[in-house]
Amino acid sequence: MMHRPIQATILTQNLRDNLRLAKNICRQSSSWAVVKANAYGHTIEAALQGFSESEGLALLELESAGLARKLRWQKKILLLEGIFSIADLDEVLRLHCDHVIHHEEQITHLLSWFKKQSADRQAEFLEHCSIWLKLNSGMNRLGFKSAAYGVAFEVLKNMGCTVHHLTHFANADDETKFPSVQSQWDVFTKATQFFAGLRSAANSAAILHHPQTHADFIRPGIMLYGASPSGIYQDIASVGLKAGMTLRSKIIAIQDLQVGEQVGYGSQFTATKNTKIAVIACGYADGYPRHAPNGTPVWIGSRSHLTDGGLAFTAGRVSMDMMTVDVSHLPFAELGSPVELWGELLPIDKVAYSAGTVGYELMCAVAPRVHVSIV
Amino acid sequence: MMHRPIQATILTQNLRDNLRLAKNICRQSSSWAVVKANAYGHTIEAALQGFSESEGLALLELESAGLARKLRWQKKILLLEGIFSIADLDEVLRLHCDHVIHHEEQITHLLSWFKKQSADRQAEFLEHCSIWLKLNSGMNRLGFKSAAYGVAFEVLKNMGCTVHHLTHFANADDETKFPSVQSQWDVFTKATQFFAGLRSAANSAAILHHPQTHADFIRPGIMLYGASPSGIYQDIASVGLKAGMTLRSKIIAIQDLQVGEQVGYGSQFTATKNTKIAVIACGYADGYPRHAPNGTPVWIGSRSHLTDGGLAFTAGRVSMDMMTVDVSHLPFAELGSPVELWGELLPIDKVAYSAGTVGYELMCAVAPRVHVSIV
Repeated sequence: MMHRPIQATILTQNLRDNLRLAKNICRQSSSWAVVKANAYGHTIEAALQGFSESEGLALLELESAGLARKLRWQKKILLLEGIFSIADLDEVLRLHCDHVIHHEEQITHLLSWFKKQSADRQAEFLEHCSIWLKLNSGMNRLGFKSAAYGVAFEVLKNMGCTVHHLTHFANADDETKFPSVQSQWDVFTKATQFFAGLRSAANSAAILHHPQTHADFIRPGIMLYGASPSGIYQDIASVGLKAGMTLRSKIIAIQDLQVGEQVGYGSQFTATKNTKIAVIACGYADGYPRHAPNGTPVWIGSRSHLTDGGLAFTAGRVSMDMMTVDVSHLPFAELGSPVELWGELLPIDKVAYSAGTVGYELMCAVAPRVHVSIV
Repeated sequence: MMHRPIQATILTQNLRDNLRLAKNICRQSSSWAVVKANAYGHTIEAALQGFSESEGLALLELESAGLARKLRWQKKILLLEGIFSIADLDEVLRLHCDHVIHHEEQITHLLSWFKKQSADRQAEFLEHCSIWLKLNSGMNRLGFKSAAYGVAFEVLKNMGCTVHHLTHFANADDETKFPSVQSQWDVFTKATQFFAGLRSAANSAAILHHPQTHADFIRPGIMLYGASPSGIYQDIASVGLKAGMTLRSKIIAIQDLQVGEQVGYGSQFTATKNTKIAVIACGYADGYPRHAPNGTPVWIGSRSHLTDGGLAFTAGRVSMDMMTVDVSHLPFAELGSPVELWGELLPIDKVAYSAGTVGYELMCAVAPRVHVSIV
């Protein structure tokens, strides 16, 4: 049952192709397909289909880890922020999750929890719940600095844990910023050089641009969903990534403006010529960015065929449930015409760029009231 | 089961008080409490508790109308955009909804559907499903222009429908913009002057600022949730509205930056002195605005008491699951300290204003992965 005509469609074959593309770039590495935030808005169900060839899934919501196990994901799962409280360790064990440790308190919790477990549960934990110790190599968000890292490593090894190594880059999509990938990579390799264990550092931008960082496990995220790590479509135009999601709706009204008439809240658009305005059933309460200014692109189809259409541009402020587009130059735009807000005909990066944000934010923001179908 | 410490709480007593406040301003009017978009993110369940004194609920999702009926809402429901397809009319009848007609095609659908119904169902429809005909009085989004309005009215009356009158203001929160409330109100009263039926025009801003427009049914929306129609907190500071929602989380790490060190993606913050950074479990995939610049306010509590705290300001780009705040001046800020992103201690309008948006967008954007509790 769907009433408003807005609909998101998840294209699992494209997710699959994007993963293959990432793995082809890094043939020596295994992969953590990053599926946090409900697979960046694409749903865990779709991610399990699209990323069945990945060695593991990485996320941070234990609820989603539980869902993945329920849907019979039997390979690895990594909790990217580890535990938030001591009680989470029961779930980590039950779901057999690898988990990040980025903070001393997580070690304190682990030690105190571990002591209270039966020998069988201790053995099960040590066998199935590897630790990925997180180094703060310069991003200054989560992780141990180098001096504390070695101590944490030894404590965990002494418990009998399998410990691997992980860090995260601040500027893999922008070589002009400091800390650079190379400086963070140098800090990481130096801090971990005498320690056994696997290494994981490369996010999507590093997969595409910094082969020296691919190491044992890559962590592709945004690229799996077909969007650009930098937020700029040109940066991935030649890579061959495909849209993971389409967001489509319909024209629910046409308004003909005379010269001087306005449209929408705050009268942000005034017609300088006679103007044909299409009202589309999509607003910021569907997840479309309210801050999209006049001129943000929208693909308008003809009533019979979406692909048989053309680009138009927003005119007037995006409101909660609707947006308005200048379709004066598109004679086929009429009541009921299908529209693509982003997807295969209009890259999400182009919409995000116009709205001053990145594809990540748009795909995560698609609201619960939007019906999602998985194909 | 809640793992990440972020949580939204809906304060139904505050919703109730806000509705009373609106009704006290307009004692001659009935009210449509606007609960579209999942009650602006507050949930239909909470809205039914908070707005039990309203004569009706207004929304646009038939799914939510169905949920309200299932939860035993027996008073009026108004579909603000009416039907999207002919099949919706079966639901309109089943749920006994009043519904807007803003477009000729909706009338065509109604005529053709009505003819096919049994006499009993026709009578039931005419008795329980009043129509609110929408006039486009200058916003140029939805509705008939004055010339077409009279024709639509007569056609519907000839069917035997009860027909009421509705319009919507573009600039009720800003008297400097055209079309003005008064100009739209004049168009509305003139177009409907010879017609029987009730009248509804006033949104929150018009309720607060334009008493001449209150008419038979007010349509309070944003004010019910405790935020400012204009997006500026000062505009409602003395009105007495209360927060409908709090969004709270915790500090999950502290980083001490040396002079010259950066934090986060794109290195958008560089320490100009030794700086204590709190990492908070809340990111744009929770619904916090990614476009919030450095300096957006966050309320930081002490580990034992949220209210025993102070304001701090974001430092570095909001990322998908985390944000970073300069807490150098707050000695009590530590791992585990509670945080309010917006709510009773920090008005949502202040956060929205800093991020270049309005409270409406933030409250609607709270993501499904955020646990919501209703109190």
